[in-house]
Amino acid sequence: MWKLIAAPNALKGSLSPFAAAAAIASGARRAVPSIEVTELGIADGGDGTAEVICRARGGSFREITALDPLGRARMGRYAWLDDETAVIDVATASGLALLQPTERNALGATSYGTGELIRAALEASAKRIVLGVGGSATVDGGSGILEALGARLLDADGKPLPRGGGALGRLARIDLSGLTPRAREVPIDIACDVDSTLLGEHGAARLFGPQKGADGAAVETLESALAHFATVVTRDFGRDAASVTSGGAAGGIAAGLFGVLGARLLPGVDLVLDAVGFDGALTGASLCITAEGLLDRQSLRNKGPFGVDKRGAARGVPVVALGGGIASDVSDANFPAFAGMFSICSRPMSLEQAMRDAAPLLEAAAERVVRLFSVKHRHKV
Amino acid sequence: MWKLIAAPNALKGSLSPFAAAAAIASGARRAVPSIEVTELGIADGGDGTAEVICRARGGSFREITALDPLGRARMGRYAWLDDETAVIDVATASGLALLQPTERNALGATSYGTGELIRAALEASAKRIVLGVGGSATVDGGSGILEALGARLLDADGKPLPRGGGALGRLARIDLSGLTPRAREVPIDIACDVDSTLLGEHGAARLFGPQKGADGAAVETLESALAHFATVVTRDFGRDAASVTSGGAAGGIAAGLFGVLGARLLPGVDLVLDAVGFDGALTGASLCITAEGLLDRQSLRNKGPFGVDKRGAARGVPVVALGGGIASDVSDANFPAFAGMFSICSRPMSLEQAMRDAAPLLEAAAERVVRLFSVKHRHKV
Repeated sequence: MWKLIAAPNALKGSLSPFAAAAAIASGARRAVPSIEVTELGIADGGDGTAEVICRARGGSFREITALDPLGRARMGRYAWLDDETAVIDVATASGLALLQPTERNALGATSYGTGELIRAALEASAKRIVLGVGGSATVDGGSGILEALGARLLDADGKPLPRGGGALGRLARIDLSGLTPRAREVPIDIACDVDSTLLGEHGAARLFGPQKGADGAAVETLESALAHFATVVTRDFGRDAASVTSGGAAGGIAAGLFGVLGARLLPGVDLVLDAVGFDGALTGASLCITAEGLLDRQSLRNKGPFGVDKRGAARGVPVVALGGGIASDVSDANFPAFAGMFSICSRPMSLEQAMRDAAPLLEAAAERVVRLFSVKHRHKV
Repeated sequence: MWKLIAAPNALKGSLSPFAAAAAIASGARRAVPSIEVTELGIADGGDGTAEVICRARGGSFREITALDPLGRARMGRYAWLDDETAVIDVATASGLALLQPTERNALGATSYGTGELIRAALEASAKRIVLGVGGSATVDGGSGILEALGARLLDADGKPLPRGGGALGRLARIDLSGLTPRAREVPIDIACDVDSTLLGEHGAARLFGPQKGADGAAVETLESALAHFATVVTRDFGRDAASVTSGGAAGGIAAGLFGVLGARLLPGVDLVLDAVGFDGALTGASLCITAEGLLDRQSLRNKGPFGVDKRGAARGVPVVALGGGIASDVSDANFPAFAGMFSICSRPMSLEQAMRDAAPLLEAAAERVVRLFSVKHRHKV
């Protein structure tokens, strides 16, 4: 009998990581009925990180009201683990999915609601905060979170700035006198899904601003506002918010919490894989199958499948990646990372069909891979 | 170092078997540069059989004029092998591809030109005739071939019938007194790509007539004409043309030549694999990759990939099938035939795109399969 680890990301728009893992497990059992499969849905810091960690660790969700990016009260939640870690997705209270497309407001959207969730976790005596940063609607450098935790962002006249990244150009100083005390004591670990810094072409404003509703002028307003914000933070707190790796994640939440509170910015997939006990699950495994909606060049950097592959390679467990599609930018040069990359598309089909039938297609693809892989047990070469 | 056999069918409309084999070989070498690859394009009795055998055996083509299905003189050809075997595709002189769609004439189309090619080969002292039957435009029970070889198909008044299957309902007897003598001495082996008999729902008229231009009335005229033809043949020559397996191939050419001349009807893929020396090539191989345009239920019966798989299974060589697509009628139940079946589609795409990019897609698919398969060399499980 041999052992398979089914460790897929979500296939966005089609399957949760858990549904994907179940499909892979089902396909594997069709190929080799006696196979032992560990289902371990994963994430890489993007939307869904809290649920992935919560399920793997047997935690539970706690709900409270929190403001959405436009300041409207909604239900939010955070995951609570037995070791008193709270895991919070920025997308829960500050996500783009909470807004209608016409409501997007990159200049004004605030991460305040995420700060309320963090504060609630701190008040519940959390010993560690983990923040998954994917899918945010905000470009406010985490200033909303800081405000919710009791900080005051003041202009040159000592007046509080309005919420949103657009106002940060007028920031004179950050007053932490009212900060909830445990915000500086409890470690905050941020699971980052990008490694780009706060500013510049790949930064929070210029690369990610447009999808949050920023037009050309708004992008440059935000770029300049975040640059000023970083200068103030670095000057007053001694941590270089502008140049820290992954500082551009979640509209600069990563840079802001790093600079002001000393949060740790970690590659999301590594943080998640550690949190779900991935290395332990690999022990004794013959094969690991991971998956993602699109296997592209990004997948080969910080995304879930590549993180899984690195862990597998370190332990001699081959990793096969299944994707809704394999992008044409994935060429030979970066291909050898995986023992195999296969598309779930079993014939010419539209994107709509591939997404609609993702579960049976993924199941069949896993069946094929396990069947071929199991040949090694039958044939000596 | 390990050895791969690349033994694909044509991917119809996209790649010849030889181009497909080259793509597989190229992909395999990208995955494992030291791999030894034998390229062996195959066929299953369909169009292209003569070229596949001719290339593998180092034969040459001979050209002569021969009538097309409508009686127009065209250049035809047959392959000539060192052992004095002639290999002839019915499609060369009697193929549907020779006609404009508006010219299709199931009632009148004749296999006479194929008979001219056979006669030329006999006159060149061929010791064996191999006939590949795919792609015919005719439903004449091989009566045109018989006529070209010197037979006379006569009505009740002793007058020759007009050409084409539609006239066979008036057949009274077949006069073989003028038959070229060697036609009964030289073995004729027919590589059949279907196993259906001459008549009935899956027969030459009802299943294959419509694609050759027969409307509903013409189909029934042909069904009844072929039934009468078979009765006469069986009565006069003692071989049951109506019930012989594969008799329905090529508009009944298989049934007619079996009945009148004692031709052997063989599963096309087996005949071709024997002719190209496939079993010998398998010796010492670690893996065989085959391919076809569409892997469907038919592929799992008489088509090339399944024939390849049977040979591989008998010798302990796993066979992976690559297809432009895997049809939805290929379910678990018949799947285990192969070590793996994979589509060349690496992402959602249209049929047009898959066909246009078939070469690089097939190459990349082969690379992936060989890479995964080669994992067994690196990882013990």
